[in-house]
Order: sequence, then C-alpha cells, then structure tokens
Amino acid sequence: MNFKLTANDPLSKARAGEITTDHGTVQTPIFMPVGTAGSVKAVHQRELAHDIKAQIILGNTYHLFMRPGLDTIERAGGLHRFNGWNKPILTDSGGYQVYSLSEVRKIKEEGVTFRSHIDGSKHLFTPENVMDTQRIIGADIIMAFDECTPYPCEYGYARRSIDMTHRWLKRCCDRFDTTEPKYGYSQSLFPIVQGSVYKDLRKQSAEEIASFEREGNAIGGLSVGEPAEEMYAMTEIVCDILPVEKPRYLMGVGTPVNILENIALGIDMFDCVMPTRNARNGMLFTKNGIINIRNEKWKNDFSPIEADTDLFSDLNYSKAYLRHLVHSNEILGAQIATLHNLHFYIWLVTEAREKIISGEFYHWKNKMVQQLAQRL
Amino acid sequence: MNFKLTANDPLSKARAGEITTDHGTVQTPIFMPVGTAGSVKAVHQRELAHDIKAQIILGNTYHLFMRPGLDTIERAGGLHRFNGWNKPILTDSGGYQVYSLSEVRKIKEEGVTFRSHIDGSKHLFTPENVMDTQRIIGADIIMAFDECTPYPCEYGYARRSIDMTHRWLKRCCDRFDTTEPKYGYSQSLFPIVQGSVYKDLRKQSAEEIASFEREGNAIGGLSVGEPAEEMYAMTEIVCDILPVEKPRYLMGVGTPVNILENIALGIDMFDCVMPTRNARNGMLFTKNGIINIRNEKWKNDFSPIEADTDLFSDLNYSKAYLRHLVHSNEILGAQIATLHNLHFYIWLVTEAREKIISGEFYHWKNKMVQQLAQRL
Repeated sequence: MNFKLTANDPLSKARAGEITTDHGTVQTPIFMPVGTAGSVKAVHQRELAHDIKAQIILGNTYHLFMRPGLDTIERAGGLHRFNGWNKPILTDSGGYQVYSLSEVRKIKEEGVTFRSHIDGSKHLFTPENVMDTQRIIGADIIMAFDECTPYPCEYGYARRSIDMTHRWLKRCCDRFDTTEPKYGYSQSLFPIVQGSVYKDLRKQSAEEIASFEREGNAIGGLSVGEPAEEMYAMTEIVCDILPVEKPRYLMGVGTPVNILENIALGIDMFDCVMPTRNARNGMLFTKNGIINIRNEKWKNDFSPIEADTDLFSDLNYSKAYLRHLVHSNEILGAQIATLHNLHFYIWLVTEAREKIISGEFYHWKNKMVQQLAQRL
Repeated sequence: MNFKLTANDPLSKARAGEITTDHGTVQTPIFMPVGTAGSVKAVHQRELAHDIKAQIILGNTYHLFMRPGLDTIERAGGLHRFNGWNKPILTDSGGYQVYSLSEVRKIKEEGVTFRSHIDGSKHLFTPENVMDTQRIIGADIIMAFDECTPYPCEYGYARRSIDMTHRWLKRCCDRFDTTEPKYGYSQSLFPIVQGSVYKDLRKQSAEEIASFEREGNAIGGLSVGEPAEEMYAMTEIVCDILPVEKPRYLMGVGTPVNILENIALGIDMFDCVMPTRNARNGMLFTKNGIINIRNEKWKNDFSPIEADTDLFSDLNYSKAYLRHLVHSNEILGAQIATLHNLHFYIWLVTEAREKIISGEFYHWKNKMVQQLAQRL
C-alpha cells in the first residue's frame, strides 16, 4: 500500500491524497460504503462502481465470519472473488460487533468470548485469530483487534482498556508480520487509537499507536453517543500526533456535517451505516439538507429526487413515487434511497477533495455545514 | 390498439403476433412482470427495460387504489408518469385482490363492498367505478370487473357467477364507451371469460365474451388451485371460441411449463407473481430446471448463476454468493433472484415466439417442458 499527499488546505488541516492498493487507487478524503455481509444493502456491485462511484467498500469481519463463514470465503478465493467487487476492500476487526450485537460476551486478556447473535454458538476472538480471519477474507486494509469502549465510560476503565488494546496491537502485529496474504495481493494492517473522550488517554494512545509505524492509522470509539464537539476535540488531539504522511481513518463517522468537520481536522477515510440504514427508513441526505421522504409534504411532489445530478435514479423517479414506495414497504424504495444517499456521500467527499486542491475548502465547508444540517 | 398475427405454428395452435399501443409495441407471446403497487418488486425500471427486456408490465388496481391513491396518480398524470415506466402497462380490475386479500367482503349485483387489508377502511367497487379508476390509472389495457370464482367451486355458484360477470361486463362496456382517456393516449378494455372448471360454462362464457367484440379477450379464474390438466382443458375450449384475430390473455399463469403448454393452445399474454415472489424465497427458474438456491448443495458452487446468458447479474454473481445473500436476508439476494427469474421468463416467451416463426415450436416445446420441470 502506498499513500501520497496531493494537497493541503491553507486554512484548515484538510488534506487530499491517494492510496494505492493492489486492487486500485482510492482518492482521499473518501467515504467507504458499508457492505456488512459482503453486500452493500440494496445495491448491485455494478451500481456501486458506475452510478455511486464508490472507490472502496467495507466488510464486517464478525458478519462474514458468521455467514457465509471462512471456509466458503477461502474456497471462493477471498471476499473480492466471492462478491464480485474488484476494487479495494477494508475489513474491521469484528470487535465492535462483538461488543454491540452479542448479548453474552466476556473480555479477558486472551481475547473475547461471545455467543453469535444468529444461532447462539460460542466463539473466541483473539488478536491472533482475528488477523488470521482477515487474511482469509483478504481485504486490502485490515484492522487491529481492539476494545471499543462505550459512551459514557469511566476514566479508570478507559485507561485500563487502552493498555489492553495496545498489548493486543502488539500481538496483532506479531501475527500479521509472520503470516502472508493468501491470494497473491498485499494487505495492510491499521492500528486503532482509543481512549474514550479523555484528552490525556487519546494523546497517550495516539503516541503509542504511532510508534508501531504501520501503513495507516485509525481512530475508534467515537460516534458512540458523545456530543459532536467532544468527537471533534478528540479527532484534533489525535490528528496532531498521528504521522502526516500516513492515511487517517475515523471509524463509524458519521453525518455529512461530521464528515466535513473531521476532514477539516485532517481525517482521510470514513465509513458509516448512516447513509444506507437511514435510506431504508426514508431519510435522504441532500446538498440542501435532510429530507424525511415519509412526510406528507412530499405526497404530490413530482419533481425528481434530485435534479442537479448525474444519478439515473434521482432523475428517473420523483419524490412522490419514492414516498409511495417507502410507505408501501416496497424493496425498490430502499434501493432508490440507498443509491441516493451513497451517491451523495461520495459526491460530498469528492467535492471536498476538489476544494482542498483548489484551496477553497475552508470557506466552502463552513457554508456547507449550515446547508447540510437543515431539515427540508 | 392494434393486433397483427405474424405466424402460426404448423403443429399446434401457437401463434406469434404484435400488439401496438400508444406506448409502443409488444411482441407476443409475452409475459408481463407484475408491478403490484407501481413497482415490480426489487427491480429498477432501467433494469426492467434494458436487462430483463420486459415489453409490458402489469399494475394492480386494488393496490394502486389503496396506495398511493387515485388523487396522487391523477396529479402525476397517470401511472406511466408516476413510476417512470414509459412502455405499455396493463391493469387488472382489482376484483381478484378484493376476493383474496379482503377478509370482509360482500358480493352483490351492484358490486363488491370490502374492507382494505391495509387500514380496514370500507370501499365499494362497481363495474362503473372500476372503469373510472382504470381511466385514472391510465393503463394501455384495462380489465373488466368480474367475479373470480375460487377452486373448488360448486356448479350452481359458478353458473350464477358467470351470469353476473356478463351483466357486469355490459355495465363496464357502457361506462368505458361513454368516457374518454385522461392523458391523451388510448386505452383498450378486455373482458374476462369465467366458468370455473366446467366445460359448458366456459363455452357459454367464451361465446358471450366474444360477442362483445372488444379489442382483446382474457381468461380468468384459472391457476387458482385446479390440476394443470383442467387448466389446459379450459384454455383449449375457450381458445377455440375466442376470435383468432384478437389477443388472448390468460390471467395469473403460471409456471414455465404452464406458459409453454398454454402458448401451444393459442394464448398470447401471461402474467404471474411466481417469478418475482418465488425469487424472494430463493427459487430460480432456469433452462435446465428449478434451483432452490437455499440448498446446501450450492454453498460452495462458485459458478455463475447462469453462464449462457447476457444478463449482467447472472454473470457477475455466483450461486454460492446468491445462496449466502438469501440465507442472510440481504435485499441484494431478492434483487439478483428477481432479475434472474424475470429475465428467464422473458427469454422463454421470446424463444417460443422465434420457434413459432421458424415452425419449430411444437417439438421444442415438448423437449423444454421435460427440462423445465426438473429439480436441480
């Protein structure tokens, strides 16, 4: 993997860059659609590549481990071959799902034991076997196994937790560095900064993570319920420590406004279920603000979902038609809304990138965050 | 509307033709995908036109009347404008849904009173207001309001029922012939032959229906649980009476085998929820037989869903991936399986048409019905 910085915004810490992987390049800042179980919900891979223009997607190790399982993915020749997405893929470590989906779980130094939310079967995730699992899934970028603390989180717990996350990181790196990719293309391991909303812990964790000198770095444990101002404060502290010449990935973030504010603080990569999950509930993100398409006011609005766009579905379908589909629980409603939101998120980061390169990012961002937060 | 017969099969009663409407032509025999509430479930209109190559779709008057309602459809300028499908549309009369979906319904000479399956609201469908409703929806071909008898059905009930259906037809025609299309393109009304599985009633109904001399004729009340042999016997009797020079539409039929056998008896048009509904449950219809993609045997079958095809999704995705999606209740599973089944149904009728034109239909049909019924 290679990362090249292309431009820096003069009035903020925003930067434009390019990540090169064996499955192609990714222009940053970038948003990565979430393809939980090997599918970005309600979207064809053809649409992801050509209509949404996604450059990289995310897969969830926990979900893929459960279904279809490692044996099937390995026989297929890795996730790219299994789902037919030939561009870069990033997988998380499965930790977040273990903490959020499994009712019964026990965190020990060795790792985490938990029961599957699907069939109740018992499993143990350790730093070592999570590296092995991600070798088998075969993503281009894989994540360290960490503990993602909830919000709120007591200081003492958060302090002990980052210590364990750092010890786990050492074990992840040892395993990763003594194993090989399985399918003939290289993989990179990103470690994760934790520390809840405590500045000293975030600083300490960022310094520790940076000292591992991996090819990129991530920030986890944010967007878990804390106020946006606390999130931005943590991002700022951590970005000041993480090396400039490596990509920075803010995990699980967020709203369009969150994304622009964090780009301004020096983040390069984002993922979030919000554009896809909210789409299935009828919430659309647009340049001019947020639309709840279920509302009565769209009932007889026959204008295109978005007129100023190159997305076929925004142009071909009206707001009234989409509202009808969502109210009638038609699958096509989820398809159209998901296409819209993901296309908008990719447009937003692409536009941000162009503004960084042209030196106009800061003022554009300040204007946009007003617009994007409006309710239409 | 215009119907032109192009070819007759020398060894069966199969025929090839072309229907011309103000929204374009339809080459027969044809299968019409069902777009219940203005959407063929899980399929974009772009995919319907370009990938599946559908020529005409069906809308359900009952569902459209409930949601989005006539006011919205009329303001949109009709269903074509509302859902963005610019090719021909056929609507049923709503009768079948009133009988099958509404728990509380009362059939009287005036019409049918029933409660909505969605909100319990009370409604009355009459021959007259169903014509008005279909004028507002604006389909190219609209259906008479009839009583669709269940199976089994007592002889006396079936006899009285066709008498009422014929009286209702007179009222439908009177209303239709004294009203105008609303959106500047013409509409045609098809009456429906009923009579359960009684040969004399079917004969009587077909003669009565033919005497109205409408632009096309339909056969209803079949594929409601009777053995296939009874269905074919009824189709044969009715097709011998319905005029040769007008299209014949067999409503709600059926499996690929049913379709080929009924083409051989002189049917030109079909619709059925089977390819779409069964797709969502993981059943695929293929040239070589039926696949239940949920079965263990496809778990590690990484071959394309269908290799000998021009359909992008059949080529891009494997059976193992589709199986995984269906097991994981991923929306993309419904999308891929629906595309496959509809593409197959359209391929089947298109192939049948070519075989009729080349004079090879009969032997090809007899070979295909063996193949299509196999379980893979």
